Amino acid sequence: MGVHRAAIVGAGHTRFGVLEEGPRALLRAAVGAAFESVDRAPERSSVDEIFLATLGFGGWQIGNSASVLAEESGCVGVPVTRVENACASGGFALRAAARAVSSGSAELVLVAGVEKMTDVSNARRRYWLGVSGDTEWERLAGLTFAGVYGLIASRYLSEHRLGREALAEVAVKNHEAGALNPNAHFRKAVRTDQVLGAPRVADPLGLYDCCPVSDGAAAILVARADVARRFTDTPVWVDGLGASSDYLAVQERPDLVRFAATRRAADAAFASAGFDRSKVSFALVHDCFTIAELLALEDLGFAAPGEAPRLTLAHETRRTGRLPVNPDGGLKAKGHPIGATGVSQAYEVFAQLRGQAGARQVPGASHALTHNVGGAGATAAVTVFSVG
Amino acid sequence: MGVHRAAIVGAGHTRFGVLEEGPRALLRAAVGAAFESVDRAPERSSVDEIFLATLGFGGWQIGNSASVLAEESGCVGVPVTRVENACASGGFALRAAARAVSSGSAELVLVAGVEKMTDVSNARRRYWLGVSGDTEWERLAGLTFAGVYGLIASRYLSEHRLGREALAEVAVKNHEAGALNPNAHFRKAVRTDQVLGAPRVADPLGLYDCCPVSDGAAAILVARADVARRFTDTPVWVDGLGASSDYLAVQERPDLVRFAATRRAADAAFASAGFDRSKVSFALVHDCFTIAELLALEDLGFAAPGEAPRLTLAHETRRTGRLPVNPDGGLKAKGHPIGATGVSQAYEVFAQLRGQAGARQVPGASHALTHNVGGAGATAAVTVFSVG
Repeated sequence: MGVHRAAIVGAGHTRFGVLEEGPRALLRAAVGAAFESVDRAPERSSVDEIFLATLGFGGWQIGNSASVLAEESGCVGVPVTRVENACASGGFALRAAARAVSSGSAELVLVAGVEKMTDVSNARRRYWLGVSGDTEWERLAGLTFAGVYGLIASRYLSEHRLGREALAEVAVKNHEAGALNPNAHFRKAVRTDQVLGAPRVADPLGLYDCCPVSDGAAAILVARADVARRFTDTPVWVDGLGASSDYLAVQERPDLVRFAATRRAADAAFASAGFDRSKVSFALVHDCFTIAELLALEDLGFAAPGEAPRLTLAHETRRTGRLPVNPDGGLKAKGHPIGATGVSQAYEVFAQLRGQAGARQVPGASHALTHNVGGAGATAAVTVFSVG
Repeated sequence: MGVHRAAIVGAGHTRFGVLEEGPRALLRAAVGAAFESVDRAPERSSVDEIFLATLGFGGWQIGNSASVLAEESGCVGVPVTRVENACASGGFALRAAARAVSSGSAELVLVAGVEKMTDVSNARRRYWLGVSGDTEWERLAGLTFAGVYGLIASRYLSEHRLGREALAEVAVKNHEAGALNPNAHFRKAVRTDQVLGAPRVADPLGLYDCCPVSDGAAAILVARADVARRFTDTPVWVDGLGASSDYLAVQERPDLVRFAATRRAADAAFASAGFDRSKVSFALVHDCFTIAELLALEDLGFAAPGEAPRLTLAHETRRTGRLPVNPDGGLKAKGHPIGATGVSQAYEVFAQLRGQAGARQVPGASHALTHNVGGAGATAAVTVFSVG
């Protein structure tokens, strides 16, 4: 993957939800928590590179946010690069950080992701989020993200002759996980009949099939292998990085129910990791809508096409199942503050692989995968990790 | 600088100015020209990483622009990362590309920068650009970018007991250079009395002290040393990379007329290059306002504090002087389509160091420096290059 191995040595997280705090306070809190989480905390002055993931602009009237992060992390002077790949911003920022470390150009890198979404009007937010999908053929024709995923879900269910039960089970499972996560936006279990009976947002997707609009931030510290042991005896290794792009408009793609970007990113991540899917103890996948979790299982190679619903309904993706998926509640229940999401996934990997995930701990977890998507499959980052 | 040396092997550029084309067409044209410029052109399929620099959003209702660039460059599937550091986006994207290559994780990287600024209303553009400066203490109090640089210029002229002559000479020099550059927004020389007599925008800065609002795109191809020779016998080496951040609000900084981010970035760039300022044949500096060119000369270490005006008035920074500065016309006359600017600087370095800059050629150029600033000094990237 590079000359040096990269390791996560610290991770911080704010609550996700409808929060009072603005983006500066959220960044400050997440970065502060990341430093405090390190077993033998480094000086802030030892950070030599910073990446910021945010969609930005919408919820805060502040640009040049790289400079804002330098201030709020107490690292003014350090190079900060803002990375924006729509909802995959965090995954791409993590990749940039791990590469900076593995190339030897940095020893200790800070990555932070943030979004402030709830103080924007609905009309403005529709534009702000909508432009991450195709504009010319989708958005201006009235198609929303829920609409695109609704079309994908319709096609998927029809292709495999299925009802909505597996979609509902994704919601039930992820809400149950969210209830155990103190940082989650939704900390309430829901029943299958509630999910199936909820108002439709974009047929066949109902209210509980959609992730919420959340505020929040997350931060991680990535260190070069030879210095990581200074900070902790239990670093979490970033073993494999994969990323890819696809056409922005879904109509340009040959298949509505397969995300080629996810497939290519996963193959690249495992190729660079040197271990295979069978090793993975749990996965954090981009479930912006319940259908997206089913697609992800298949595109990541954990299930054959059309098999994800069976796996899900057999509870194999529950925390106690064969391959736990989204034990943190996922985007669905934990929330989805755009730029923070990919970094939050790395936070969860750090907690889980060190056995510090409390009530939501996946027993015996040793290897993990994160999957972060921008737009309806237009860009994807997949990362694999291990401990020990 | 890394395990491998990085080289520019191709560069493309659209005209800068008030253009008919939208951002997709501009990207397509610049990337196409970059491939065509390569002596032995690579297949598009051999690109293994892409970076996009753009402030985005304002002039195009398109987000997820990483995916848009994948499409327009014919490289769908390749990982694309959008980098946004305000007006320094291009410089940071170039740095990311050179690092991807020098770390060995990529062999051939495409960098493109674009902005579509002229089809936005003035009111909307004021917000869109304004947020790259401080919002809480500057923008919402009515301070514009011209206003901030006006304050800086006032302070500078008062500190050094100077009139506006050196500022005017920067405008005259850069307009004269722009007149020789077929891609420049302004291709018209101006006289000193015209500059001094023009309407004031933000005292002491007049109309000719300010760069224009431009559309345009630029693209470069960066290759790993061991493959660069496949594409050309005359690669342009990226020898040193430097970047830094500063407080966003100028009131937080100890000195109004020194940009610490530029100083740190320049020191880092020369430290990694292994050669010093005396080697530099010409410099492309971030002259968004004429005062910014004077500050840059001092912060980059080419002139002692207060000495830049004398250097400038002695014509030492003209194309035929001791240290030519902005022989392409600079932001001032070539134009400043935000995301494109840093990439356009690398384009000019490629042309100049290969002796292909035509009427604006700097005689005997062998080493070059680019300097790209985001906000009023909040973030800066400095890169140094050589040929042969």
